[in-house]
Order: sequence, then C-alpha cells, then structure tokens
Amino acid sequence: MEDVSKQTGQNGSKRVVLAYSGGLDTSCILVWLQEQGYEVIAFMANLGQEEDFDAARDKANKLGAKEVIVQDLRRSLVEDYVWPAVQGDLIYEDRYLLGTALARPCITRGMIDTARRHQAGYISHGATGKGNDQIRFELGCYALSPDIKIIAPWKDPSFYRRFPGRKELFDYAKLHGIPLPVTPKAPWSIDANLVHVSYESGILENPATHPPCGIYEMTTDPEKAPDVPQMLTLTFQNGIPTAVSVAGDATKVVDCLEIFNAVNRVGAQHGVGRVDIVENRFIGLKSRGLYETPGLTILRAAHLDLEALCMDREVRKIKAHLSTKMAEQVYNGLWYSPEFEFTRKCIADCQKVVTGSVTLKVYKGNVYIQGRSAPVSLYNEELVSMDTQGDYEPSDAHGFIRINAVRLREYQRVKNALDKLS
Amino acid sequence: MEDVSKQTGQNGSKRVVLAYSGGLDTSCILVWLQEQGYEVIAFMANLGQEEDFDAARDKANKLGAKEVIVQDLRRSLVEDYVWPAVQGDLIYEDRYLLGTALARPCITRGMIDTARRHQAGYISHGATGKGNDQIRFELGCYALSPDIKIIAPWKDPSFYRRFPGRKELFDYAKLHGIPLPVTPKAPWSIDANLVHVSYESGILENPATHPPCGIYEMTTDPEKAPDVPQMLTLTFQNGIPTAVSVAGDATKVVDCLEIFNAVNRVGAQHGVGRVDIVENRFIGLKSRGLYETPGLTILRAAHLDLEALCMDREVRKIKAHLSTKMAEQVYNGLWYSPEFEFTRKCIADCQKVVTGSVTLKVYKGNVYIQGRSAPVSLYNEELVSMDTQGDYEPSDAHGFIRINAVRLREYQRVKNALDKLS
Amino acid sequence: MEDVSKQTGQNGSKRVVLAYSGGLDTSCILVWLQEQGYEVIAFMANLGQEEDFDAARDKANKLGAKEVIVQDLRRSLVEDYVWPAVQGDLIYEDRYLLGTALARPCITRGMIDTARRHQAGYISHGATGKGNDQIRFELGCYALSPDIKIIAPWKDPSFYRRFPGRKELFDYAKLHGIPLPVTPKAPWSIDANLVHVSYESGILENPATHPPCGIYEMTTDPEKAPDVPQMLTLTFQNGIPTAVSVAGDATKVVDCLEIFNAVNRVGAQHGVGRVDIVENRFIGLKSRGLYETPGLTILRAAHLDLEALCMDREVRKIKAHLSTKMAEQVYNGLWYSPEFEFTRKCIADCQKVVTGSVTLKVYKGNVYIQGRSAPVSLYNEELVSMDTQGDYEPSDAHGFIRINAVRLREYQRVKNALDKLS
Amino acid sequence: MEDVSKQTGQNGSKRVVLAYSGGLDTSCILVWLQEQGYEVIAFMANLGQEEDFDAARDKANKLGAKEVIVQDLRRSLVEDYVWPAVQGDLIYEDRYLLGTALARPCITRGMIDTARRHQAGYISHGATGKGNDQIRFELGCYALSPDIKIIAPWKDPSFYRRFPGRKELFDYAKLHGIPLPVTPKAPWSIDANLVHVSYESGILENPATHPPCGIYEMTTDPEKAPDVPQMLTLTFQNGIPTAVSVAGDATKVVDCLEIFNAVNRVGAQHGVGRVDIVENRFIGLKSRGLYETPGLTILRAAHLDLEALCMDREVRKIKAHLSTKMAEQVYNGLWYSPEFEFTRKCIADCQKVVTGSVTLKVYKGNVYIQGRSAPVSLYNEELVSMDTQGDYEPSDAHGFIRINAVRLREYQRVKNALDKLS
Repeated sequence: MEDVSKQTGQNGSKRVVLAYSGGLDTSCILVWLQEQGYEVIAFMANLGQEEDFDAARDKANKLGAKEVIVQDLRRSLVEDYVWPAVQGDLIYEDRYLLGTALARPCITRGMIDTARRHQAGYISHGATGKGNDQIRFELGCYALSPDIKIIAPWKDPSFYRRFPGRKELFDYAKLHGIPLPVTPKAPWSIDANLVHVSYESGILENPATHPPCGIYEMTTDPEKAPDVPQMLTLTFQNGIPTAVSVAGDATKVVDCLEIFNAVNRVGAQHGVGRVDIVENRFIGLKSRGLYETPGLTILRAAHLDLEALCMDREVRKIKAHLSTKMAEQVYNGLWYSPEFEFTRKCIADCQKVVTGSVTLKVYKGNVYIQGRSAPVSLYNEELVSMDTQGDYEPSDAHGFIRINAVRLREYQRVKNALDKLS
Repeated sequence: MEDVSKQTGQNGSKRVVLAYSGGLDTSCILVWLQEQGYEVIAFMANLGQEEDFDAARDKANKLGAKEVIVQDLRRSLVEDYVWPAVQGDLIYEDRYLLGTALARPCITRGMIDTARRHQAGYISHGATGKGNDQIRFELGCYALSPDIKIIAPWKDPSFYRRFPGRKELFDYAKLHGIPLPVTPKAPWSIDANLVHVSYESGILENPATHPPCGIYEMTTDPEKAPDVPQMLTLTFQNGIPTAVSVAGDATKVVDCLEIFNAVNRVGAQHGVGRVDIVENRFIGLKSRGLYETPGLTILRAAHLDLEALCMDREVRKIKAHLSTKMAEQVYNGLWYSPEFEFTRKCIADCQKVVTGSVTLKVYKGNVYIQGRSAPVSLYNEELVSMDTQGDYEPSDAHGFIRINAVRLREYQRVKNALDKLS
Repeated sequence: MEDVSKQTGQNGSKRVVLAYSGGLDTSCILVWLQEQGYEVIAFMANLGQEEDFDAARDKANKLGAKEVIVQDLRRSLVEDYVWPAVQGDLIYEDRYLLGTALARPCITRGMIDTARRHQAGYISHGATGKGNDQIRFELGCYALSPDIKIIAPWKDPSFYRRFPGRKELFDYAKLHGIPLPVTPKAPWSIDANLVHVSYESGILENPATHPPCGIYEMTTDPEKAPDVPQMLTLTFQNGIPTAVSVAGDATKVVDCLEIFNAVNRVGAQHGVGRVDIVENRFIGLKSRGLYETPGLTILRAAHLDLEALCMDREVRKIKAHLSTKMAEQVYNGLWYSPEFEFTRKCIADCQKVVTGSVTLKVYKGNVYIQGRSAPVSLYNEELVSMDTQGDYEPSDAHGFIRINAVRLREYQRVKNALDKLS
Repeated sequence: MEDVSKQTGQNGSKRVVLAYSGGLDTSCILVWLQEQGYEVIAFMANLGQEEDFDAARDKANKLGAKEVIVQDLRRSLVEDYVWPAVQGDLIYEDRYLLGTALARPCITRGMIDTARRHQAGYISHGATGKGNDQIRFELGCYALSPDIKIIAPWKDPSFYRRFPGRKELFDYAKLHGIPLPVTPKAPWSIDANLVHVSYESGILENPATHPPCGIYEMTTDPEKAPDVPQMLTLTFQNGIPTAVSVAGDATKVVDCLEIFNAVNRVGAQHGVGRVDIVENRFIGLKSRGLYETPGLTILRAAHLDLEALCMDREVRKIKAHLSTKMAEQVYNGLWYSPEFEFTRKCIADCQKVVTGSVTLKVYKGNVYIQGRSAPVSLYNEELVSMDTQGDYEPSDAHGFIRINAVRLREYQRVKNALDKLS
C-alpha cells in the first residue's frame, strides 16, 4: 500500500485527479484527500448517464475542489470503444456485453489526459477492493501513464479502518458539510452509461433471488412493451455501423452517436437486452449482476448475422477465438495492453469484408433477423441451390466423404484391436 | 463413385438398408434399388416428427420392400444425443443448436444396427451432394461399420443423369405405381424431429428474403403467444436435466423424454427458439436456414446459467474451447470419431459440479433467468458482499493490480522507445 | 473425375502446363497428354535442388513439349515463403519444418502465371492420390485460378488402370523413346529444394525401421561433423532475417537468398536439422518421413529466442495459437486461402517488435543459443535483478498471490463439501 | 502484508514449517522466526539434488529448530509430477521443460502434510518477491490448506528493511552463530533436483552474456561427451514410461525411479538438454535462465514420437491445446487448481492409446529417434504404401480436393469483386 501521506507529485505538488460522482463516497474522499494535503481536481465523465452535472459541479466546488471538469465523452465512447466491441462481437462468458467494461477505459483516458494537462501526479477513485472497477481504472492508468500514483481510499487501511461502516461516513459528512443523500439508498448498486445500466450487490447478492419488480431503469418491461413489432435496417461498413433506418421514420441516421442512440431507443422501448447472470470477476470471485443493454444487443445480433454472410468459415473460426480473448481483455481492464492492441488490430483486419445491411424485427424483448444482403459476399445462391447444379459435381462429394472417412475407419479398426488386447 | 451394378454384399446377397421417408424421392429410390438387383429393407426412425408411419410402412411394402422397420428412437435421441449437447452448451457458429445434426447419428446407429441384424452390406439414403446430411449419414456409417458400402443415388451419375428434373422422377413414379404427392410441394424443404424443425432451400435461398409468414410449424408466433409469462424450474445433476416443474402444473417431471417434451411444450407455446441464419456447411458452401428449437433453447439457457454458478472460471474457459470443437464435430457429422469421443469425455468430466436448479420465465419468444441455486457452488455470497469483509483484505487488491501492471508499464516504456527509434 | 478426353481449354485450345521433373513418370505423362490431344508446356522450378535442368529441358523438348520453361524461383522461395514461416516459427505437429509444403505454393504460383501467359486452361502433375502434394498443387491452382482444370493422371482411372505397375510404364517408355533410368531406383522417394530434403516411402514405410546409413544427402552425419563448433550471429528486423555473420568469415551477409544459403551451409556442415517422424497427412493417413532442414532449423531457433526477448507474454500466447493454425494451413496446401491471408497478416503485425540479434553455436547436429540483444525490448535487467529493488515493491507480490488464491481456496472449500455430499 | 507479530496459529501455538535449505538465508530466517515467537519445524525435501542433508539437519538443530524433517520425495516427484508432464509433453514457451515448476508442488505437498501432522498454522520460505517460487509455494499452500498462513520474510517489510543487503545478513548471522558460507557465492543462483539444474540471476541477468564456461553441473559438455553414440529403447504404457533398455546394458529397468535415473544418466553423460532462454514469469517480468534437463528431454522426445504413431490427428490437436494450458498452469504454480485437475484428467484420458516402444540414439547433446512400434496403432503401412492400393481409391482424392476448393474458389471470386468495388 502506498503511504499517501508521504507521496509527492510531479513538480513538487500533490495534485490529484479524482473520479467524482457527486455521491456521498466520492464527496467524502474529496474532502479527505484535501485533509491529506492534496489539491483535488474533480473529474466527471458524461457518458450519457442520467445525472445532474451542474449540481455535482457546484457540490464539488463547495467541498473545496481546486477545479471541476465535466467531459463529454459520449461520442468517444461510441466510436472508440463500442464500435470495436461490435466488430469483435464481444461478449464475456457467453452473456455479458461489457457495458461497464467498455466505459472504464474511456473514463481512464479522460482522467489521464486531465492529469497531464494539469500536471497532477495522482489519480484517485472510490471503487472498492472486491470489484472489477478498481482494476479497470488502475491498470488503465498505469498503462497510459506508468509513473502515475493511485490513491484508492477503499483499499487504504488508513481510510477503510477510519470508516468501517456507513455511520462513520455519515458522521464525517455531517462534520464537513457534505450533504447526506435525501432518498434512501437502493438495496443494490447501479452503474449507468449510454450503453447499459447494471445492477448488483445488496439483495441481488443472493443468486436465487428473482430480479425485483421495477428494478430496470433503461428498458421497458417486455410485458409492457408495444404490441406492434418494430422493424429496422442496419448498415455496416468494414464491420462498423454506418447507418440505421427505423421503419416508420423517414430519416436515415448516419452519425455514429445518433445511430447508437436511435438503436438504443428502439431496443429500450421494446424491452431488449435484459440479462441476469452470475459472472467471474478478475479477482476470482463469482458475482451476480443484472444488465440491460438494449442497443448493443441489437447491434451485436445484426453484426453477427452480416458477418456470417460475408466472412469465410475458417477466418470466422480464428476470429471467434480472438474475440473470446478480446472480451476477456476488456473485462479484465486490459484495454491499454499489448495483447489488446494486437487482437483489436487482427479483428479490425478481418472486418474489411463485413459490409452490407441487415433487417431486424424487434418485439417484446427479442430481436429477430429478417434478412441480410451485401454488395459482395461469399454467399452464392446459385451454388447452394438444390435446383441448379451450377459449377458443382455431386459425385465429388463422394470422394470428399470417403477421404474424410479414412481416418474414422482406421480408428474403428484400432478400437476393435484395442478391445481384444484389453 | 462405386459402380453399384458390380457391388456384392456380405453373404453373397445384395441387401441394402434404405433410409426411407415415405416421400417421392425415397420411394423412387426404393424401386430403383430393386431394379439394380438389391433386396431393400426400408428403415424409418421415429424421432418424434409428425408422420404417419403406418401409411409409410404400407407404401414401402407395396413398393416391394423386403422388410419395413420403424424404430422408436425418441428416448435414445434425448438421452444419448441431446443430453450431451446440453452438457456441452453446444451451439454452432454462435446460433444453431444442431437440431438436425444431433438426430443424424441417432438414425445412423439405428440403420447400422439394422444392417448388422439383417446381414445387409449396403446403406442407401436420399440426401443430395450439396448438403450436410449425406456427410453425417455416410461418415457415421463408415465409422460404425468400416466395410459398409453406401449407395447415394443423388450423387451417382447413373441415377442423377437419369433423373435430371422433377418431371423424369414423376414419370418414373407413375410407371412404377408410386403415388404422387397430392399437395403441392412447399417452396422450401423441411426437416423435423422432436428437437427442432428446420427450413431451407427454395425461396429461402435468397438470404435477403424475410421468413414467410406462417412458415414455422412447431412454435407459436411470438406475437400470438400467451400474454401471461410461464415460470418453470429446471433441475440438473452432473449437467444433465433430471427434473422440471412447470408453474401451475402440480407434477414434477423426472423421466428424460418427458422432461424434454414438457420443456418443449412450454417453449413451443411461447414462441421460443426461432432463428434465421446463414451458416457454413462442411462442404464449404454458405446456406441460409430457419430453425425453431423451443425446448433445447430453454435447456441451454438454464444449463449455461447453472454452470456459471458452479464451475470454476478457468475450467470454464477450457470447457468453452472444447465446446466449440464439439459443436463443429457434431455439425460435421463426426459424432462417431476419436475426437468426439475425447471431447465428450472431457466435457462430461467437468460437469460433475453442475448440479442445482434454475428458475426461468418464458414470455413471447424469450427466456429470462430468474434465479439459480446449487447445494454446493463456488458462489460465495459472504465473500462477494460489499457489506462484509469476510476473509478478504482490500489492500491485497493493491498488490494484485500493481503486479498485473508490471507488464503494462514496461510495454509503455518500450512503445515510447520504439516511437523514438522509428 | 474429369473425363480428360472431353475437356476443352480456354480459347478452344487444349494447352496444359505440366509440372515436369525430368523423371520417368512425368516424361510418360508428357507423352500421354499429347496422346490425349494436349499441347504440353513443361514447367520446371529451380528451387535450389540439385538437378541438371539443361538435360531435363532437352529431354522434354525431344518428347514433344511445345515449350519448356525453367523458372528460377529460389529468391521468391526464400523471401515470399520461408521468411513468413520464420516470422511464424512455423512447425507442424511439433517437429516438421514444412520444407516441402513451403515450396509447393511457390511452384504453383509459377505454374499458374505460366498458364496465364500461355493461355493454357489445364495444369497437370505427377503426384499420386495418397500424398499431400496433389492437395497442395491443386488447392493452390484452384485458389489462384478458379476456372483452371487439373489433370492428375495418377488419380485418373484411364491412366492408372493402364499403368498398374512399373512394368507397364517401362513398356510405354520404351515404346515412346523415353529414356529409362540408368541407376536403380532408391528404395525410398526424395523431395529436395534449398530448404530441405525429405525421404519417405519404400523401406521407410515401416515406422520401426531405423533410418538407413547414408540416406541423408544434404547434411553431414553429426558423427562426422567438425569437432570445432561454429559461432554465428543472426540479425532480424520485424522478425525477418536481415543479416548473418559467420564467425571466422569477415563478410556480413545481407542479401536474403545469401543469408539463407550461408546459414544453410553452416547447418549442413554441422549436421543440423535431421528428424525422423510420423506425421498426419491431410487425407487422414499417418506416414513416416525423414527430413533434413539445416538452415531453417537454425533460423527458427534464433527467431524464437529473439521473440522471447522482445514480445509481450500475452501477445506471444495469442501468436502461438495463430502459428499452430498457420502451420496447419501451410501443411494442408492452404497458402492461398482466406484464413492463411488472415493469420499471416496477424503474425506479421506482431513481428514489428522482433528486431535484434542472436548469437548461436552450432555443433554436431545441435544449435545452442549463446546470447541475444535488441535495441528495444521488454527485458528489463534492472527490474528483474534480485540485487536491485528498482521500481518494485516486494510486498505487492503478497497481494498478487492472495488474490490469485481466492479462487483456489474457494475451490478447496467446495471440494470438501462435495466430498461430504457424495 | 500479514503482521506476523500478531498471528496466532491453530491450537493457540505459533508453529511454523520452514522450507529449509541449509543456506545462509533460510538459516537466518530460522533464527528470525524464533525471535518473532515461532516454534520452527525445518523441512527439507530430498528431490535427488546433491546435498549434505545430515549437515543441514545438524545446523538447523543447532539454530533452535524444534524439529528437522528430511523427506525423501524422489519417487513421488517422478511418479506424481514428472510422469504427468511426460504424458502432456509439457513445455513452457516452446523451450522450458518445467524442472523447477514440477518440483515445487511436490515440496508443497510435503510441507502441508508436515504442517497438518504437527499442527502448525504457518508456512515460511526464503523465496523473494520477484520470482516464480514464491507463487508456486504459496498458491500450492493456499490451495491445499486454505487457512494456512504464509510468512515470506523477503516480502515482509519488517524483514527486508532490516536486511537491505548481504552485509546486514552477515552481521546477523555472526551475532547468532550462523556459519557463514566458506566458498564465495557463485555469481548466479542455482536450483537443482533430479529433473534438472537451473541457473539464473547475477551475471546471467544480461541476456546477451554467453553462458559461462563450466557453469553446467549436471550434464557433460557436449564437446567433451563420448564420441560413440548411445542407443536406448523406451517403452510406454498409457503414455507413462514403463521400461528402458540401454544398449550394452543387459538389464531392462522397470521401476519408475530407476527408469528416470537411467535415462537421466544417459542424457547427462551425452550432454543432452541444455537450453539458454528468456522466459516470461507469472509476475510479468522477463527473465533469463539456463537449464539442463537431460532425462526429461529424452523422455519427451520419445513420448512425442510414440504419440504421433498412436494418436488420431484431431485428438492430437485438441490435446496440444490442452498441453499448452497445462504447461502454463504448472509454470504459474497452479498444480493444485481446478483447471489443472481438469486438464490433467483430459490428458490422461487421451493417453490410453499411447502404448509402445521408441528407440533413440543419443549423441553429443542431441536425441535422434530411430524407430518406433506399437502393438496397436493408427499407422497403417499397407494403406499409406505407394506400392499397394489397399482399400483406397485414388479417384476419391479428386472429389476431396474439389470440395475443399469450393470455398477457395468462391473467395477468389469475391476478392476480384471487392477489388473492383474499391
């Protein structure tokens, strides 16, 4: 553990960029850091979450922040983090679309840029020692700025022993004029950005407990979703969404952020993308989480489908292996790592053929592919047709199978011999 | 190509077991084989498909079949083929649950057993030279019985040149008293068993064409499915379904075939498991298929969820790799291969911990996990809880991250150096 | 099987490019093809093998070849085929360095270019139906020129039934003035190029038979190799050899072909690179082969070593997986395939850091790495040193291990519980 | 970091099992632990290394050890740790045979058993915070005994700040009557057991430095090895060595420890198994090491060869993937992990066919396979023979290749279309 009282920043200063949320914990940390002798720059990322940034800014200023920075990172989140995930069909452990994991390196980049601009030698955050966020923040910081120092109060005994429970934190808040939350804390914790909202902890920690009614904030309950399906058509170029047309809406959306928002709106309205899973954290614990990821669920389905049309079978197999690795890297906070750089580049390379359109129907929580087309693809309607022979000799299949059977027939022979031996 | 006119079976006889469907093609083949001098045993597998087996039996008898065998393989299909697929979470190319591919080795086993019992040296089938079925049938036959000879008329020039179109086949049918189909042929082809129904060819060959309204035969259209969700609870032992309780139904089903049927019924009623995909066939063609797989879709979701609760993260990664291989093996007709034996055994081994229950909600085509529990699992509620410290020292995470960052920080150093060099 | 008597080439002509070796088989094929009505262009690739190209040219001309082309492909073999193999550390089934498999696509490219230049619609070769060569030639041809037609007499019943044994071939040769071999045929078959010599078939087919004394043609018997070791230093840039200095030889070699030849000479003189293996052919047979690959053995050892110095651990793991795939692709004749294009590009991308030098000692069949260095590498002597603490806090390792143990300790807990249950 | 002064063992005692080497460091630790209030049980494992265990025992007793235990683990090392490595063909990063990594879990098991027997709640060792040993020891301990407490002085600031250099350690030794080393410390560190000797640190830390003359202790310098090769024959059952016959030696060795020792002697005498590598440690550092592993190098070559004869190609591919994982697990100290249990079981399962014999020639540092045989294997001499047709139709290969080319020809078509588009 770094002994924070002895750390000295670059330029002799002790300046720290704090990932500030406006909530009780990071407000207390803001004050506590000043007590330890730091100048605090409060940093907030606008990632599309519902939040009163102005109120949070005022609060941070009142609590003594040297500076408060609210950075609009929504476009960067979509273009630099979500689009590569779409290209990679990223999914962690078959079910989690990485909504939080994609946002973390985006925030980290913003914080490190801020630290450089303001010559701050320290980064601080309010994440605890059991979760993935601490890892994603800190690995990202170390990777982008190897000499940066991290102050993570919830892992620093001098902090967490001082605040063993909520009561001590409340006392401290009262003492320092930090406003206490007016609404009672939800019995779970939430992380939100434009990609998804996640729910974990509290009553959700029992994996047998059913998701509480009304917990989801982003998507309509499928049971209350419209009775009429919604059609939409997504267009991709090199595996990246370049346009969306929502049936009944005349305008074709082509701006990256607007594409994402439009798809998100359709998904949210129709209750798409809710999952309830148990996952394996990087630190080796299993945890239970609820996620709602409307837009990315639709985008992934569409991309996967177009890829199947355009990409060679064997390339696809290799790509699928790389995708699994890439998803693990993102989950584990390794966005800024040599292996991520490598896999991302490989994935991007195989996306050059993934150009075309997919039409989907969205209805009561589900996404149904309706059809797909591409200006150029490996799908050869004439060749596959049972009605035309084309450039295909049926008898060739005879030899193909006979040769593939050589090995199997030998094996049978050996098995019989082995059985006789034993 | 085998020259069928010169083949001689075991025991001097020319006896052939024909995979008979009762349709026009295999009826013509039944007659044609006799013309070539074969004694034909017509074989039909009852895999739970809708079919009038008695009518087909009569037809085959009338057309000169030496013997007609209808084998009820439903229980074997579930126990010996579907359950291993559930254990393996098998899915081909991210979307296809292998409904046809699982049935083929079950049929093949039945046919080879029949051939042995009746001392037949030949197997015949009506599959064409472009599809997967020919491969699955023939590889299975060669593997189970290395000396068997295969007669595949649609790949035999002496047959397919004689019947270049439907007209020639109709003429041949009329000539030999083979009843012509009374209903016009559907503009697509269908394969059905208790696991799924698949649709391909014909108007579906254009991948942009939307699935025709009313094409699906097994599942209710989600838009017409009940407005009230259905809850059900599945229990697994060693990764194999051992019981299902459907809410509102007092009886707990524990027989393997009945479990599958009960889950299938719920899924079908609520429109679960419809997909429309482009896939890569073993022979290297891309083809478009529609599938509806209600029960297996639910079973897979439940198994995947319980596995996440019970199985170690690193075991899971290795298992996921093996599952991908196993799905490819099944798709490619390699059920009776050394590699399938090996992967299946490995998968079964890691399932010993997958014991417990999962509760799901099924609604309008979708499956929602509600909760899961296991008598013993790696999920440790106390350890993961943010509210209890348990046996966990937050400061350990500091070292964990610092050490994981060693490599990243070095890489950053090198990148800077490389940039300066170039 | 193509019915060669009915094939018609582009432009109405029946012109064929024949892979001609000058030996009995391809000489007979040269004549036979003319009998079938083809104009034959005899093609020979100079890949550095010991061969009297002028004599072969005369022979082909005398036997009626329309044209004889001897193409010097040595430089292309090294630059376009061997160097990518070095970058990929390619090895098939842990032991075979792919000496033949790398040469085949090089020859194929030459033949297809020749066919295009001469408007020939056919390619012919003398490879048999059991080996890998037929596959490598034909897949390459089809990939480079999808409409090309292949004439493979040894797989064409009209040819192989006419020549069921050597006697019939000899008779045919005598009849057509084809010179018979003066020396008795070696009791094994040989393939040679500058990369390696391979030996298989004949008496080697028994896998228990020891390699006959004196069989190897390229390398000195290690037991007769010099008693004094040879030092040499190899330099790589982006994973590609760019220079070699052989100790005792003042000149530093920098030309790609000369580098390969220089390393080859050292290896051959010191008996490096002999292996005796059983391998799995693409068609599913196991075969036994002897190989001697002096230069590439040294180059692979050096490259592997430098890569270990320069490449990140996790990138290396992903690369190793890709390398295995790439080696299989090359072995199976898939050089000109989408998957090879993809893996090769990925591999090349990760080689950007593999720049530096390796010093090796070569002695009596073995290669010993002596040391390596790189202008920029991830090896940090100060950090790894046990004597300096550098930027490293030993106590961090405590947390690292504790967190890695979280999962293991949980597993132990579960195992105990499972044991109690069962 | 555990605060050792406050730890209390099971039964109220503070009893610790110390991995004692007899050297200066662990002798100081032995004394220091007593100063901290612990009862120390000194534990030494006899793994076949050259060591005066009696002298070490006396020394430990004199320094106050409550008990000294020397456990002969040689047989267990071979049977329980080396044999699974042989079955798996384990190799880390293509070159390291894991000689140290295999010994660590063997020692750990011995220490944990000792701790249980003596009701000790603590384990202590002298490994530092940069190496792999600390991880292998500690992960093994935590896995085998989740509640065990580890005292690792070189990672404990209260120890390593007290002994910042060798001088302080010498002073402490003098003060407590700990004998100082009489011979000057080698400028590198050594780890030895019957499997291998490793050398690292000190002057070896510069990766460009050539291995010092005379550094290797276990193997003869190849340049001084016998001029006459040694033949030997190894027999395996289920992938495990069951006998060795060394040419010129009448006795066939069949005891597991004696087999290993016999092969080791041949390897050592002929200078087999020396490597000089840069490897990636678990903690993310690159380090340079020299290893000599004579016997295991021979055993691995023989096993790999027999496996190629007996194992199906596709099983082999899956097995190779699992082997890579298993080697990483062993290297990273995860012998007692769920994933190791799983991979080891899978590997053992596929070894059932690996039964037979391999004859090898060992000469001047190299191992040459001479031939192999198996009572039952997939190698079919008749089938592969170019001279017999067997059960093989050459024309089948035509169809095999044509079908494999379907995909490649389509790709070519698409590439041309894509080129025209762009």
